[in-house]
Amino acid sequence: MKPPQTKAPLTIVKVGGSILDNAKVLVAFLEDFAGLDGNKILVHGGGKLATTLAEKMGIPQQIIDGRRITDKDTLDIVTMVYAGKINKSVVAELQKNGCNAVGVSGADGNTVLAHKRTQADVDFGYVGDVDSVQTLLIETLLLAGFTVVCAPITHDAHGLLLNTNADTIAQELAQAFSGQYQVTLVYSFEKPGVMMDVEDVDSVIPHIHLEYYKQLKDEKKVFAGMLPKLDNAFTAISKGVAKVIIGDAQKLKEVLAGHGGTTLEL
Amino acid sequence: MKPPQTKAPLTIVKVGGSILDNAKVLVAFLEDFAGLDGNKILVHGGGKLATTLAEKMGIPQQIIDGRRITDKDTLDIVTMVYAGKINKSVVAELQKNGCNAVGVSGADGNTVLAHKRTQADVDFGYVGDVDSVQTLLIETLLLAGFTVVCAPITHDAHGLLLNTNADTIAQELAQAFSGQYQVTLVYSFEKPGVMMDVEDVDSVIPHIHLEYYKQLKDEKKVFAGMLPKLDNAFTAISKGVAKVIIGDAQKLKEVLAGHGGTTLEL
Repeated sequence: MKPPQTKAPLTIVKVGGSILDNAKVLVAFLEDFAGLDGNKILVHGGGKLATTLAEKMGIPQQIIDGRRITDKDTLDIVTMVYAGKINKSVVAELQKNGCNAVGVSGADGNTVLAHKRTQADVDFGYVGDVDSVQTLLIETLLLAGFTVVCAPITHDAHGLLLNTNADTIAQELAQAFSGQYQVTLVYSFEKPGVMMDVEDVDSVIPHIHLEYYKQLKDEKKVFAGMLPKLDNAFTAISKGVAKVIIGDAQKLKEVLAGHGGTTLEL
Repeated sequence: MKPPQTKAPLTIVKVGGSILDNAKVLVAFLEDFAGLDGNKILVHGGGKLATTLAEKMGIPQQIIDGRRITDKDTLDIVTMVYAGKINKSVVAELQKNGCNAVGVSGADGNTVLAHKRTQADVDFGYVGDVDSVQTLLIETLLLAGFTVVCAPITHDAHGLLLNTNADTIAQELAQAFSGQYQVTLVYSFEKPGVMMDVEDVDSVIPHIHLEYYKQLKDEKKVFAGMLPKLDNAFTAISKGVAKVIIGDAQKLKEVLAGHGGTTLEL
């Protein structure tokens, strides 16, 4: 086995939240992302655009526990918005910045195989839970020098597209690539990091180790909305991802350089 | 220079017209396409879905000379429908058939660079005329064993997405790949081929050579709606494409085997 330091670095950035809803902020973010050195993957969510489109089309939207209930019409909408409008706009903007980007979804190259969630209490509709990741397509693209932009649409290999949480996609990709690459996974959003006090931007915790996280969780000191991100992060780390950073999408370069944001390690 | 017979074959199929609007017909077509041997690219148009979505959203659509006038809202719609819904549904269906498909647009990998059409008489809006094709992305995917599915959305390298005619994209790809591959370009649609009498499906002309085409055109014996396809076809052939076939999408295998359809050669 090769020692870990011989692995090439790979940066996987998840961008979501209000960043995608503000054209000016998104353009600045993509300029920063385009400027990052080395292998990189951008995983994006959908922002409010899917909801806006559904409203225009008169299709009522229901969100339970932060997850969109995806009926057939809503699946069409998220496929159009995530894999169409957002994915291709991001690709065009990165190309403008000299970054040779290629947009994919989880269906392309059978990259993210999922199954329709079946749960007794809530019917989430066409929501996909991830079964496996095939790295061939993205690996081929990275080796050829492309930057990959991934939309959170997956498939079940029986012809069905599924709506999968973008944080989860980012985590699954990070885990799948951690065998070949030294992966840094960045959850970038509109907040400066994990905060002790959600109202106080100066309360960012710079480092959280697993034991400290358990303690914060027990003492209910972490904002509840951050828990799924933190759980995902520590799962990723336990599966070989070198580092997870949670930080401000508008300060991507600083955050990646270790200035600001919250770094999670074992 | 290598003799032409050493080039690997590449089949580029354009599918459009009513094929995309009928789920059952599309599924059967994709099963056939998935079964084709060797390197292959599928270029799809948009069918009526973009028009339907525009109606649902209350955005009026204008079509002049068979080309959609693409205002900003309509550009969003065609990007969502072509690069999102149709592209990813086709990919998922091909994956179901064991064909490892990857969906791309012309923006991905800077594959099809275009500029916004500027014309004195009609303002087509965000319609892109092709400037150049970069083969690296698709070539990389083909070499890795993937099948490529291309949506007719291009970009201008300044961050703008553009709506480009799918027949033109198919022709441009065919020309660009004819240096490395022996390309067969198939325009597949709901008709059996080029017909002497548009009302008579038995009047298909099996072969048209350039001289014969000029003669048919002079004598106005070809259905006017076919002229752009035929002009595109002979341009492609003059630029190195080995063969162009125009035929029934529902008989793809037969048409490719030379049974039915119209074959165009120099």
